[in-house]
Amino acid sequence: MSDVAVVLVEPQGPLNIGSVCRAMANFGFSDLRLVNPQTDHLCEDARQMAVKAGGLLELAQIYPTLAAALSDRQYALGTTRRFGRYRDDFLAPHEAAQCLGELGQISTALVFGREDCGLLTEELDLCQRFITIPTSDDFPSMNLAQAVSLCLYELAKVGAITASVSSVELADNADVENMFAHMRTSLTNIEYLVESNPDHILRTYRRIFGRAGLSPRDVKVLRGLWRRIGWLYNQLEEKGTENR
Amino acid sequence: MSDVAVVLVEPQGPLNIGSVCRAMANFGFSDLRLVNPQTDHLCEDARQMAVKAGGLLELAQIYPTLAAALSDRQYALGTTRRFGRYRDDFLAPHEAAQCLGELGQISTALVFGREDCGLLTEELDLCQRFITIPTSDDFPSMNLAQAVSLCLYELAKVGAITASVSSVELADNADVENMFAHMRTSLTNIEYLVESNPDHILRTYRRIFGRAGLSPRDVKVLRGLWRRIGWLYNQLEEKGTENR
Repeated sequence: MSDVAVVLVEPQGPLNIGSVCRAMANFGFSDLRLVNPQTDHLCEDARQMAVKAGGLLELAQIYPTLAAALSDRQYALGTTRRFGRYRDDFLAPHEAAQCLGELGQISTALVFGREDCGLLTEELDLCQRFITIPTSDDFPSMNLAQAVSLCLYELAKVGAITASVSSVELADNADVENMFAHMRTSLTNIEYLVESNPDHILRTYRRIFGRAGLSPRDVKVLRGLWRRIGWLYNQLEEKGTENR
Repeated sequence: MSDVAVVLVEPQGPLNIGSVCRAMANFGFSDLRLVNPQTDHLCEDARQMAVKAGGLLELAQIYPTLAAALSDRQYALGTTRRFGRYRDDFLAPHEAAQCLGELGQISTALVFGREDCGLLTEELDLCQRFITIPTSDDFPSMNLAQAVSLCLYELAKVGAITASVSSVELADNADVENMFAHMRTSLTNIEYLVESNPDHILRTYRRIFGRAGLSPRDVKVLRGLWRRIGWLYNQLEEKGTENR
């Protein structure tokens, strides 16, 4: 199985963090990353729930933002129940596991949001694909550690079966985000993206590129287009000035 | 799905009982049976972990023995890690779910043992089949509520094959090709694509969009960008003419 980090964004409950460690140990995972935790993850409650996996609490890395936690990852899967327009991009846990199995050796993150309100839209923007656990419409909200446990169980199931060859060599998240920043500037200048809300249409591109998976070369080719558009825009600005 | 009861034998932790209720509600189960519970299942800790599924705690039936709890069941699956002689009878959770799916409409019990020592041999004797969750040999012991959650998740998955997560609704090939033709013209005009061989770079985009799969909406959004670039190009052409 590929190298998988479990990322908890602003976890609030020490019992949950401890339970997550135990579930990680159950299924053979060890890279825990906490983004701006709202509680002391080394407290007694967390250790008690971790049982024999307390070592993972000690090893957990703390990050100020999700972007920082994902900077060395090639692929991030964000868990959410917020469907909206992008319903098609949602994977059930076993589908996500298959998808990772097919991608082969890549560095991956499974991202879980706050106990009460999950991941924010701008955090989901940093993920290539979304996982949603099919729960009852009447009681959709799962316990955080149980959700982690389910996803890792599915990954471990696929990991035991596949050792597939990688198809796409994926670019690092930081490079992809730089490409998106360039894209946003370039396409806002030419008023294709609306200045007041550039991310609305940009999000459609995030979904397309997320499904595709971008290689380092893809990122380079795309930046070439944003650069060309930027050059065009500058030309037009200059001509406009000349004519005044 | 058949009529499934969740049976906890001598559960010790109120947090676990509450968490089990929440997991049951998440996956649409409601029949909780407690055999000789070692704690007050209606206490504050249990209610807190049950969150909105506290109603299931109130409805839980108490039994003195496992035999009593199973008396109205046609089929019982006992969870255990104790293999011994009967290794062949062990089902992974997804196999157990398939098995129940094939059996059709029968009254079933999923039986979970004590947090510290599981089910006794004489309790396993009351079960038709055994479930074991494939965990790491180094950290085999799972949290009780997480184990329940995993098993119910697999049962719900089999129960709801029809409601599976949809894949992307794809645009017609002709629309995608028209989009590519538009893209070729627009990006050749601005000299991002080389006129002598526009398809070289365009092919990179074909690969990206091919992997992603484009929905009708995606095609529309992309055409909006090529149109905007076309407009920009015309503006520049006009300004150029004015300046001559």
